[in-house]
Amino acid sequence: MMNEPVRTKKNIKLTLAYDGSQYHGFQFQLNALTVQKVLEEKLSLLLGEPVRVTGAARTDAGVHAYNQVVNFRTASPMPTDRIPIALRGTLPRDIVVTQANDVPNNFHARFSATGKLYSYKILNSSFSDPTQRNYAWQFYKPLNVGEMDQALQLLVGEHNFAAFQSSGSSARNPVRILYSLKCDCLNNLVEIRLHGNGFLYHMVRNIIGTAVDVGTGKLSIEQFRQIFEGKDRKKSGATAPACGLYLVDVFYENTAEILDNIDNIK
Amino acid sequence: MMNEPVRTKKNIKLTLAYDGSQYHGFQFQLNALTVQKVLEEKLSLLLGEPVRVTGAARTDAGVHAYNQVVNFRTASPMPTDRIPIALRGTLPRDIVVTQANDVPNNFHARFSATGKLYSYKILNSSFSDPTQRNYAWQFYKPLNVGEMDQALQLLVGEHNFAAFQSSGSSARNPVRILYSLKCDCLNNLVEIRLHGNGFLYHMVRNIIGTAVDVGTGKLSIEQFRQIFEGKDRKKSGATAPACGLYLVDVFYENTAEILDNIDNIK
Repeated sequence: MMNEPVRTKKNIKLTLAYDGSQYHGFQFQLNALTVQKVLEEKLSLLLGEPVRVTGAARTDAGVHAYNQVVNFRTASPMPTDRIPIALRGTLPRDIVVTQANDVPNNFHARFSATGKLYSYKILNSSFSDPTQRNYAWQFYKPLNVGEMDQALQLLVGEHNFAAFQSSGSSARNPVRILYSLKCDCLNNLVEIRLHGNGFLYHMVRNIIGTAVDVGTGKLSIEQFRQIFEGKDRKKSGATAPACGLYLVDVFYENTAEILDNIDNIK
Repeated sequence: MMNEPVRTKKNIKLTLAYDGSQYHGFQFQLNALTVQKVLEEKLSLLLGEPVRVTGAARTDAGVHAYNQVVNFRTASPMPTDRIPIALRGTLPRDIVVTQANDVPNNFHARFSATGKLYSYKILNSSFSDPTQRNYAWQFYKPLNVGEMDQALQLLVGEHNFAAFQSSGSSARNPVRILYSLKCDCLNNLVEIRLHGNGFLYHMVRNIIGTAVDVGTGKLSIEQFRQIFEGKDRKKSGATAPACGLYLVDVFYENTAEILDNIDNIK
């Protein structure tokens, strides 16, 4: 056995963008179309062996991604940098693999991640735009974005985010660090970007749903603060629709250095 | 016969927005799903009589609209202002009727139109964004938008636009007035807005396809001018993809006054 030739398995990191409108979320489900299912199917065909990927974030049905990250191990001799081009021909048009990199054996898309950046888009207009129906929350009542921003800034820092954690979450510790939160408004499009070390189940969507109550005047900033500090999900606002949510980036400690080293080895 | 009670037919103008991604264009086709077909089907059910609408513009497959205009005649007693709300429950989510107005009997959505405003969106980025795949032309090579704008401004005014008219057009006179053309670039999104008295078959998309050749440096501004003045479609650039095109508005002479008067009569 010891003398049998062993094909070393490579650990490969893929970066992918997708339109989540037509999928039941990222994560594999036996009887539903998910991004992971489609990706694994096409990767397995391409590499000639069954492939299971590990995703950095389990985005929900209807949530989009600009830079989702997955990793997987393979014994395939296919050069890593060929993978994105090869997949372009087989993946549906709403999933695009933009990058493939060899990573150290201990790299894990989810556990190695040190931070994530999400964006939430609200189309605040009395005008119906059907071309945006899957890509932003169409909110008809006028929003006071300045007030929303003031309330949202209370969340920056290390806090217990239990007030914004939906039930069904597996996370036992609801403390997370929100490094920064940016709220922009251009024409009718309100965009809220949240950079944190991790996010609880539905956390971004519950934060947005509650912030919108501040934007309409239903809640004062002070009430928003009390809800946040009360750590009780039942007191916070509705879960904002999935279609407005985008996973923008996943960050890894020393990612740049790791990739540099690998480039040097090649 | 003369004494039979005659229900006067009203002439109704509808304004509608749609996502054209899933349709074979606006105009009715027997064996293909079109916006007109779906709209007529739902209107006929709602009003209890067969309805045929006249559209202001025959948008192609994949082209979107923010404010397409149609008119139709009906003997239905349903109050006109109820129509948008009633249709909201029956139309698919990618078609939204935003307004309904009674208009004078001689109003014709196409022939009464005095101008149209189109917008064309180019996502100029090496980054693939699958959420934009049906809503902008994803153009990967960098574009010199300043040069494109300079070339495009040559088109403003009353001109023979034969260089940008695709074959298959029914228009015998290729002279049109382009009132204004605005070229904006925000982040990676280039948006070109064209306001004219009318547009030939594929005119906007052929203009954009040729302007992009200026943006990449394939054509100089002077060559663009020569192509335009040469009036020969074979010399101009490719037809830009339909997905980037939006019918933004249709204008009618004294529209505001007509609607005001009708409001006063009610």
